Amino acid sequence: MMSDLPKRVQINEEGPREGFQIEKGPISTERKVELIDALSETGISQIQTVSFVNPARVPGWADAEEVVRRFRAKPGVRYTGLWLNDKGLKRAIATGKLFIKGSISLTASEKFLGRNQQRTLAENLEAQRGMIALFKENNVPIERGSIMAAFGCNFEGDIPAKRIVDMVGQILDLGQEHDLNIKLISLADTMAWATPQGIYRVVGAVREKYPDLELSLHLHDTRGMAIANAFAGLHMGVAMYDSTVAGLGGCPFAAHAGGAGNVCTEDLVFMLHEMGIETGVDLEKLLEVARLAEDIVGHPLPGSLKTGGSLNVLRQKLQAA
Amino acid sequence: MMSDLPKRVQINEEGPREGFQIEKGPISTERKVELIDALSETGISQIQTVSFVNPARVPGWADAEEVVRRFRAKPGVRYTGLWLNDKGLKRAIATGKLFIKGSISLTASEKFLGRNQQRTLAENLEAQRGMIALFKENNVPIERGSIMAAFGCNFEGDIPAKRIVDMVGQILDLGQEHDLNIKLISLADTMAWATPQGIYRVVGAVREKYPDLELSLHLHDTRGMAIANAFAGLHMGVAMYDSTVAGLGGCPFAAHAGGAGNVCTEDLVFMLHEMGIETGVDLEKLLEVARLAEDIVGHPLPGSLKTGGSLNVLRQKLQAA
Repeated sequence: MMSDLPKRVQINEEGPREGFQIEKGPISTERKVELIDALSETGISQIQTVSFVNPARVPGWADAEEVVRRFRAKPGVRYTGLWLNDKGLKRAIATGKLFIKGSISLTASEKFLGRNQQRTLAENLEAQRGMIALFKENNVPIERGSIMAAFGCNFEGDIPAKRIVDMVGQILDLGQEHDLNIKLISLADTMAWATPQGIYRVVGAVREKYPDLELSLHLHDTRGMAIANAFAGLHMGVAMYDSTVAGLGGCPFAAHAGGAGNVCTEDLVFMLHEMGIETGVDLEKLLEVARLAEDIVGHPLPGSLKTGGSLNVLRQKLQAA
Repeated sequence: MMSDLPKRVQINEEGPREGFQIEKGPISTERKVELIDALSETGISQIQTVSFVNPARVPGWADAEEVVRRFRAKPGVRYTGLWLNDKGLKRAIATGKLFIKGSISLTASEKFLGRNQQRTLAENLEAQRGMIALFKENNVPIERGSIMAAFGCNFEGDIPAKRIVDMVGQILDLGQEHDLNIKLISLADTMAWATPQGIYRVVGAVREKYPDLELSLHLHDTRGMAIANAFAGLHMGVAMYDSTVAGLGGCPFAAHAGGAGNVCTEDLVFMLHEMGIETGVDLEKLLEVARLAEDIVGHPLPGSLKTGGSLNVLRQKLQAA
């Protein structure tokens, strides 16, 4: 049953970007930098720090450039940012401090696309040619694709696994057409429709057709399934996960359905370590950062381990006693 | 990978008993009864209602008899209570309204036993003879055994799977010695040491030696692993779970490590239904009860689905549109 478990998992921490975008705040630039600097000391090797979006629409990220300017870049850690268009990409590049990689980004739900970008699936696919040209103009390497709403959509319902397999094919075709080497596909459970069974269904179908492709999962915990979904992903050989410290990205107690955060980094790292899977992360340091995140946002965050405590500390105490 | 998944799962709801024992309250008898009555309408077939413990030690259950007297017993639902000794058992029987079953109850951690009951493993095993006699005196059938701290202990650390297998054997031997037919063993993760891997390890070892024995799991969510542990249990063929509506039994934000509640009933039922596993439970009604539970205790409870919402309601809306 456990033959496909990876030996090592790569964690992409997205707490700062996901969290500060949704928090009412205001949260000072200084405290945002404090969280990023603390995460840098945990052994996490990739941190998504900020979002280069329109400050009029996302006031929480009006200070994106200032945050990037001020955090201490630790050698060996890749710092990334999020952008959604040409302008955002140029802002990210202009910082001179971020790890910039392009992506071919599809969305599995036509209705979601229609609402958010006023595009059909075909138009969105076509629009990726423009993005690829933009990345090339800016010397940004493109080695990954991503599919949003890969497990279901609040506006369209369940998404057939076949559509995801076809979209992976479209991404690879586009890559070939533009002489790219697409190595990784990220499947995002944007609206928290995934269940462990859904992970088996979709990831299984993709792996069957593309056994050599590296996959990563972006999971939300809105319906309490995130850790179980990650566990199912591990069984399907997925060795890369986006996650957020303390489950930043939304508070399940704010009564805004769909607003709950990503899978919680420290809960995920705990499960991985207990399974004997390496992450390179110091769990005890990470737990301190989770408590710091709670202090910064000023309200409880959903992660469990920051309250429950890790087992290794207990084991060490028992051995010493 | 999914060959052992059960087709149907039995949910034992323990929210009232677990919840009202730990809540600071005071919570009125009326509202306790309201929760039990609401649970009775969800299709759940077994509800642990109250605890017959010393009111001086657990004031939240000083009104146990009154709660039992007042709830409406719905035909087809088994209402149970918890007791820890002779006196409690007699109080439970005296209500005339509860489903009374005996259990051979062992604890896997000698240190935990020593702290709580001042007994060694051997003394505790011996004490079970007294309990069996007590059950027989009171015409209480004994068809199950249970093992507390089956996955680890805060005072002893990891528990070897072999010890659990041996204890199952001790329970079956005791049963044989007393002409009992022990059909079910409940494994309790009393201090939340279980991880999905631990479930595979322990449950796998028990199943290998006793393939025909029915198993049930009692899981806590202190470290965020409860749903993933239940998922692992399903893969090991476990078809019975204790759970609490809304995750009653402790609030992860109360900063008392180890105090987080059981696996949340509605989150578990949601996962089961999405896996095509029947429970007989009406999930939408259960979600209303979860919100009622929050109203009764007066603070947020840990379950996710009561905020995130189920998928079937969304699916129906989309089909109707």
